[in-house]
Parts: sequence; C-alpha cells; structure tokens
Amino acid sequence: MIKVVLLGSGNVAYHLALALKSADHVDLIQRYSRNGNNNSSFDTSLPCTNQLKDLEKADLYIIAINDDSISSFSKKLQSLDGLVVHTSGSIGMKELDENLRRGVFYPVQSFTIHKKIDFKKVPLIIEADSKEDLQMLQTLASAMSDQVFELNSSEREKLHISAVFANNFSNYMFACADALCKEFKLPFDVLKPIILETAKKIQNIDPFEAQTGPARRNDQATIEKHLALLQEEKKEIYQLLSKAITKSYQLKESDNGKKL
Amino acid sequence: MIKVVLLGSGNVAYHLALALKSADHVDLIQRYSRNGNNNSSFDTSLPCTNQLKDLEKADLYIIAINDDSISSFSKKLQSLDGLVVHTSGSIGMKELDENLRRGVFYPVQSFTIHKKIDFKKVPLIIEADSKEDLQMLQTLASAMSDQVFELNSSEREKLHISAVFANNFSNYMFACADALCKEFKLPFDVLKPIILETAKKIQNIDPFEAQTGPARRNDQATIEKHLALLQEEKKEIYQLLSKAITKSYQLKESDNGKKL
Repeated sequence: MIKVVLLGSGNVAYHLALALKSADHVDLIQRYSRNGNNNSSFDTSLPCTNQLKDLEKADLYIIAINDDSISSFSKKLQSLDGLVVHTSGSIGMKELDENLRRGVFYPVQSFTIHKKIDFKKVPLIIEADSKEDLQMLQTLASAMSDQVFELNSSEREKLHISAVFANNFSNYMFACADALCKEFKLPFDVLKPIILETAKKIQNIDPFEAQTGPARRNDQATIEKHLALLQEEKKEIYQLLSKAITKSYQLKESDNGKKL
Repeated sequence: MIKVVLLGSGNVAYHLALALKSADHVDLIQRYSRNGNNNSSFDTSLPCTNQLKDLEKADLYIIAINDDSISSFSKKLQSLDGLVVHTSGSIGMKELDENLRRGVFYPVQSFTIHKKIDFKKVPLIIEADSKEDLQMLQTLASAMSDQVFELNSSEREKLHISAVFANNFSNYMFACADALCKEFKLPFDVLKPIILETAKKIQNIDPFEAQTGPARRNDQATIEKHLALLQEEKKEIYQLLSKAITKSYQLKESDNGKKL
C-alpha cells in the first residue's frame, strides 16, 4: 500500500481524491486544506487538516495548488520524509524545495469540478529525482490510469507548449467564433456539434489530414471576402493562420510532387 | 410526401442519403452520380443514374458536390421543375442558375464517410427564393434534424467565417500541436483526451469563461520561455494569439472593474 496525503482544494485535488480513493494499492489517508474542510465537494470521511504540523506520515505528498504558489508552499514542507510531488505541467521539478525528495505527477487534463471523468483515460506524466521514487510514482500512476509517461522537466515544458496550442489556443478559436456569432447576431449553438465532431475525428485521424476550409484549398476569393468582414485582432489572426495553413499544404504538395 | 432526388457521391451525399431514407414524410427516389453507381458505400436499392436527362420528376433536388462545381453544374439542370438546393456553407444561393427555383440546405457538420452520425443533432441552415419553397425546406429539415435555422446568404457567409475559426482554425491548432510533438519527440496521444474534454466543456460553458493557460493569466515569464523554443510561423502564431488572449481578458477586467 502506498500511503498518500493530498494537499489542495481545487479542481485537480477534487478529481485526484476520487481517483486515489478508488485505485488499488493506494491508501489516501489525509487531505490538507488551508481553509480546513469547508469544501463539501470532498468526501467528508477523508480526514482533513488545515495545520501543516499535523500532516500524517506518508509515502507520498501530492501538492495540487496554483502554479504560482508551489515553490513557496514547498518550503513549508521541509520536515517531511516522504516523496513530495507537484501536479503542474509548466513548473519544473526543481522549483520544489531542494531539501525535499522531489517529483512531478502531472495529469494532462482540464478538470471541471463535479464533471465526472474517466481517470483511467487521463494521461499521467511522472518525474522524480531518484529511481526508487520514480518506481513508486510508476506504481501509483499505473494503478490510476492506463496512460503513464515518464518525462523530464525539459520534455514536460515542451509538452506544455504543445498543450497550449492543442488546448488553450483551440479554445480561443472557439471563443473568437462565439464572439463573432454575437457580433453577427447568429446562434453559436449551431457550431457546437461541429466542434465536438472535429475533436472526436482527430482521435483517429492526423489533424493535418483532417484539415478543411478555404485556406487548405488556397481559396483566395473566399479568404478575401472573409477578411473584408473582420476587424483588428480577428482579422490579423485570420490572415496569419490562413497564410500558415496554405503554406504548410503547399510545402507538403511540393514535397510529394503532387496535388493533395 | 416530399419526393427528393440527391445529386452527388461524396461524404455529404452519403450522410444525406442515410438521413433522407430514415426521415418521415420524405421519399428519396433517385441519386445522380457522374460515374454511375460504382460507390458501394451507398444503399444499392436506391435507383442511381449517371444521365442528367434521366432525372426523375421530384419536389426537391439536392446538389451535394464540390463548392467549385456548384455554379456550372446548376446550369445543366435548367429544365427541372422542382426546387434545386445546394448544400454549401460558403456559396451564395444566387450562384445557382437564375432559371431555377433556388434554395440552400446546408448541414453544419464535418462528415466522414462510414463514421456514423446522429443526424437529428446536425444543425441545418435553410434558405429559398420563395415562401412556399422555404416552407417545404422547413418541413423536410424538421423531419431530419432537431435544429433548423433560416439564414439568408449574407448571414450564412458570416456563419461560415465563424465556422472557419471554430472548426478549421481550431483543427490547425491541433495540427500545430501534433507537429510540435513530432519535433520534440513526444507522443501527441497524450494531448488527445484534453482536446476532447475541451470540446465537450464548451458545449455547456462559454469558451471565454473556459479559457486557461499562460496568456489568460498574463504569465509573461512562461510565454517568454515558450517563445524561445518556437520558430517561424508557430512562434508568430503563439505571439499573436497570446497577445490577443491577454488583451481580451484585460479589457474584460477593466470593464468589470475587478480581476477575473
């Protein structure tokens, strides 16, 4: 049994608590919350403390708090014997206090509280200073998810950059579409099914192959008509992305010596 | 009963044929395919011709062919009595031959052959020259889908611009993430669950509210670190989108007089 203490009260902590509770070979023994156990979302049968001095002895301490606070918070944990991991995609392992046995346990998912998720399908990225600690994280992660990857901090940073495109920037495209619909007095609901379908499609097809639209066809007439109806940032974005899309398919075309 | 002839052999024609077959009050009597019925994907019990002179008399002719060919193809249909519609989001109704009774029947979805889809949830955009024809399209569309919208060609063009952001540009963000993963030697599979979850999330939450990431937090240190690892188009895109995201949340913040 791996004894685990969870530190945090947000969305990540909430979903980790559920997954840790139901994993084999894992014993979630305590949660720390700065504000005490005033969050009724959490299982009330799990002991909760708001005093760091009262933390139980455990094999593993999982910090699931805001990125900005991880480094300073970890300095308060110097007396702990167990492995201490954070759960952030963008923070290096070495930002944890150097007196700790350090590691990272990063679930690559965007969590929403109360929105149930199949944790077995959440990719888990692990990293640790020592082989033994990495082995413990591997055992724990494999008990929780079917997808476990070992990456060092530099690789994780690169994954994070890719995730900014895949997740943050794609969401911003949805936000632009929503804003345009409001401006044009059209219902954004009309676009929701196609958004979901595209996300499903690229689970099995390379997104490069799945690309459609005026820029992929290099349909300059349509692109010009669209640009005439756009302003400021959205016009700049439309222009830059269309140029980049068209260019990448022309490159591919000349690579292949044939029309796509 | 609305008698329908379908003209086309691609993905849209394939999914329309299935939906028309199973809709009440609709009788799909014939399909036209330039190459004859050599596509075994289609229901072989549906009569198929490759001769335009052999088209049956029908209430409605649905053209489901490439955008570029719609206008010239419609000129070959001048002798038809029924309503003739195309299925494109980006082509104006008036690009159909002026001697025809004209309309548009645009399903807002990205179809893949053999990938089953619940057509009841596909938004259908309709338009026609006359009230009577619009009424017929309304009857037909309502028999096929729960989401039917009347838009004129100018509104449909604006919807198409919004769809370019929601669908084409978001897919390009997935393609960039995939390319970066290849460059960094990381598995793109790690990002697929979060892509699907984000698309599901915005079915119920405004994408503006769902936005996360360094640009939303105006985390310039992370943005600078990321930019240092990017080149050419991807660097330009990262820079422009981050600037736009940060700006839109700062505007919102000053609107509200409070920190988001």
